[in-house]
This record gives sequence, structure tokens and C-alpha cells, in this order.
Amino acid sequence: MKVGVWGLGSMGLGMAQSLVRAGHEVAGFDPRGVALEGAVDVPPGAMDGAVVVVLNAAQLETVVGELAGALPEGAVVLACATVPPDTARALAERCRAAGLLYLDAPISGGAAKAAEGRLSIMASGEPAAFARAEPLLDAMAETVFRLGDAAGAGSAMKAVNQMLAGTHIAAMAEAMVFGVTQGIDPARFMEVIPRCAGTSWMLENRGPHVVDADYAPRSAVDIWPKDLGIVAAIAEAAGIEMPVMQAALARFREASEAGLGGEDDAAVAKVYARQAGVALP
Amino acid sequence: MKVGVWGLGSMGLGMAQSLVRAGHEVAGFDPRGVALEGAVDVPPGAMDGAVVVVLNAAQLETVVGELAGALPEGAVVLACATVPPDTARALAERCRAAGLLYLDAPISGGAAKAAEGRLSIMASGEPAAFARAEPLLDAMAETVFRLGDAAGAGSAMKAVNQMLAGTHIAAMAEAMVFGVTQGIDPARFMEVIPRCAGTSWMLENRGPHVVDADYAPRSAVDIWPKDLGIVAAIAEAAGIEMPVMQAALARFREASEAGLGGEDDAAVAKVYARQAGVALP
Repeated sequence: MKVGVWGLGSMGLGMAQSLVRAGHEVAGFDPRGVALEGAVDVPPGAMDGAVVVVLNAAQLETVVGELAGALPEGAVVLACATVPPDTARALAERCRAAGLLYLDAPISGGAAKAAEGRLSIMASGEPAAFARAEPLLDAMAETVFRLGDAAGAGSAMKAVNQMLAGTHIAAMAEAMVFGVTQGIDPARFMEVIPRCAGTSWMLENRGPHVVDADYAPRSAVDIWPKDLGIVAAIAEAAGIEMPVMQAALARFREASEAGLGGEDDAAVAKVYARQAGVALP
Repeated sequence: MKVGVWGLGSMGLGMAQSLVRAGHEVAGFDPRGVALEGAVDVPPGAMDGAVVVVLNAAQLETVVGELAGALPEGAVVLACATVPPDTARALAERCRAAGLLYLDAPISGGAAKAAEGRLSIMASGEPAAFARAEPLLDAMAETVFRLGDAAGAGSAMKAVNQMLAGTHIAAMAEAMVFGVTQGIDPARFMEVIPRCAGTSWMLENRGPHVVDADYAPRSAVDIWPKDLGIVAAIAEAAGIEMPVMQAALARFREASEAGLGGEDDAAVAKVYARQAGVALP
């Protein structure tokens, strides 16, 4: 298929590479001038689909606005940013009015899996959108969760997953620093807890970053004020209390305000360590 | 070995059965009159060791006080209750003064693993205590974490694990109810999230209880005001903030106050559902 990828950050670039490897004709678009090896020059008017991997709802709205006047009728827009479900529903309506198919398709898995074509995609949209997008999904994803025939459900599941993922990172940091105050060093913590009922996917993935004092950003602190902020906004609109998530969100905001926003998200542990007056590795 | 087991609740009874099966001569003691199949009559003065599986620090202090005047010199006390590290250190000192060995040995794994002799034990104590306790540990545990030669480290690691485990149960409940408000039913939640970065051991273990509306207590709500209360007390003494854990603790206290204390701990989801005005299965 002829496809454009909008947004060549660590996720979008890997996804574009996976599409190239699968034999699609791929054009890449990024305001930072990131180059995509194997890219070809495909004008939007000739595209079968567009994959949009931008940072937030405002950027997604801008790109979809441009695509609505440029893609040919029947092309599919895969919207991969983390956005509120209401945004997904509104953009799907906008695409329908422009004769385009819209797949609400937030992604999960990180940059390495993006480059390997092994992402998880939480997708919802009308059957025609799934059908048109299938070759692209095959190239980019190991697992496609089919969450129904209306945009919004994919974004809702992504919000649920992010709520848990962010909360578990903060809980890991809180527990690790608590352990340090009780004489348990982080390396010992990581030997024991992953084999006990207190473990989580995020603990096992991010804990080693603290042990190794390696805060090169695989996923940055600043992701979480954004994504948990989306969760908080949805929760407020729905009138529900989420005190555990709110406590985690507050810690990530503190980390960001302390200048740690560009570091790996495991650096939220530094906020805890400073408050507790203990040293991490 | 000749051994007494104090406390024949769901954990203690299974552990005593595992000791019997391994060929030890086991006497059981429980104020509720619980019977242990295969028990023999061993007077405390003839015991090589005692396994104490009571509910809290006060009960552990009472039992250790009785054992200090009754067990023969050199016998080992395996203290398996969840208690503050300071309590473990004080009781180890008391046993040392009485000529007994003390192993700080909190347990993890649940009633089924207790009955199978497949618990995890987070143990610390002097080498002589480990040596004397080894045949008993072999009979009861699949994994023994050796956390150093001083009582307190085992209890500290247990506190860390409980902090995470309880927090993850509350986070699961919070996320699941959040999902329901966004149109995601709990069964679908449990199909997707365990395969994503938002998963945790507790989510995968307790989530199905909510899906099945099965609140028969495998582990009860009231465990958590107790165990997270221990964590909160240690944190306060150490002057450290644990906002994520505190939010989870508050939810478990609400659940207990709402009359759910005897239900399975997954019932904390009911507190969220009531507040959000949504129905669970």
C-alpha cells in the first residue's frame, strides 16, 4: 500500500521502518526533519492510508484536519496518539464527513517493539476501516485488540492501560525508596519482588533503570503528566474519583517541575529519594 | 524434627500439613480449636522448633513470650507473621536472652501454596537460626530469600511486598471501574490488560474475582488496613511520604467501614463502583 507516516519520533520512526520492511511504499513527515531510510515520495492524494503517531490531541487534530482535504476518498487514517475517547469520536466523525475511514488505534509496547513490528494496538472503528487498515496493522503489530466498531473504545482502553502503567511506575519508585529507608538496597529489591505477589510489568521493566542509575529516556517522565492528565480529565468529566492515580500523577508533576521531565520515567524515584533523604545508586 | 505450629488459620494449617507430610512430628496450637490431621502430642519442652503463624505483632509477642520460658535452649522460633521490622528485632533479642534462636520469616504465597509446601519465605537471622530451621523451611517453602544475618530484614522486605501488593489491588479496582465508566466491561478489561504494560501480578490474580462476582475471601479486605497500616506506621517513623500507598490504604479502610471487611480483597472495587455509580458483574 501507499502510506504516509506523520510523526517520526521513537515510535513513529520504528513503525514507518516496519511498514517499509513489509513492502509498503512509505512517505515520512516530521517537522523536525527526521529522515526515514527507504522512504519514497508519495503525495497525499495518492495514499491508501495515513498513520498518525503524534504526541497529543492538538497535534492529531491538526494533522487530521490537513488529511481531510488531501487524502483520496476511502483512504484510512490510523490515529495512534493517546487522546481522550471524545477526541477520537469527534475526529472519526470529521473523517467520515470527508469520505475517509478512521481507525482509533492507540499503540503500546515501546520503541524497540515499534521497530520490530511487534506493537500492541488497541483498535476500534467501523469494519471497513479495519479491512482497509489490515495490511498496515499486520506490518506494525504483533497483537491487535479489536475493541468494537466505534471510535473511542480503543482510546478508552489505552487510557485504562496508561492509568495502570503510570501508577505502577510511581508505586515501584515509592516502594523502592521505602525499602532503602529500611535497609533494602534496590538490587536486592529487584532480586526478590519480581518473584513475589508485589510485582508488576512496569516494576520489572523500570526497576533496573534505578538499580543501574540509567535515566536515559526510553520513555520520559513528561509522558505521565500528559497521559495521566488525560485520564484525570476523563475521570473528572465522568464524575469519578481516582485517588491512587491522582497520587501518582502528582508525583510525576513534581518530578517534571524538579527538572526531571526529559529523563527516563523511572527518575520519579528521585523525587521520593530527595523527600526521604536517602541516596539511590 | 519435633515442632509446634502456633496458629492454624488458612496459612498455618497448610504449613503444619506440609511439615507432617515431610515426616516431622508436629503439634498444633490454636485458640479456635482447629484440628490438625496427623498431629502428635509434643510438649514445648521437647521441641526443636516452633513455627508461629499468628495474625499480628501483639499475638506474636504473646506467643514468643510463652515460648521463651518453655522451649529448650537452642530451639528455633520461626516468626511468620507480618510485623514491623522493629518488632522482629526486639523479639529476636528477647529470644537470644532466653537461649533461643529466632528467624524473622514472613511468608508469601497464599493458602494453596501453604498446603503444598510451596511458599515464599523472606527470611533473615543469624546463621545458627537458618541452620536449625533448614529442615522446616525445606518442608514449607519453594523459595527462601536469605536476606541477611539480622532479624528485621525479612520483615522489611515483606512490608515492601505488601505495600506493592495492596496498592496494585486498589489500582486494579480503580482502573476496572474507570474502564466501566468508559464502556469497557471487566471481562474485556481482563482479556486486554494482562497482555499490556499495565498489568500486575495482583491484577491477574484478583481481577477475575470481580469478573466472576466471586467475593469468597481467598484473602480478605481486612488484611489491608492491617498490613498497609504497618507500612504507614513504618513510613511515619522514618519520616517518608508514601502518597500512592496512602491512597490505596484509605480505599481499603473505606471498604472495611462499608462492611466489606470479610469479603475477598477484590471487593474494594465495590467502593469505587458505588462512588462512580456504575454496576459491576
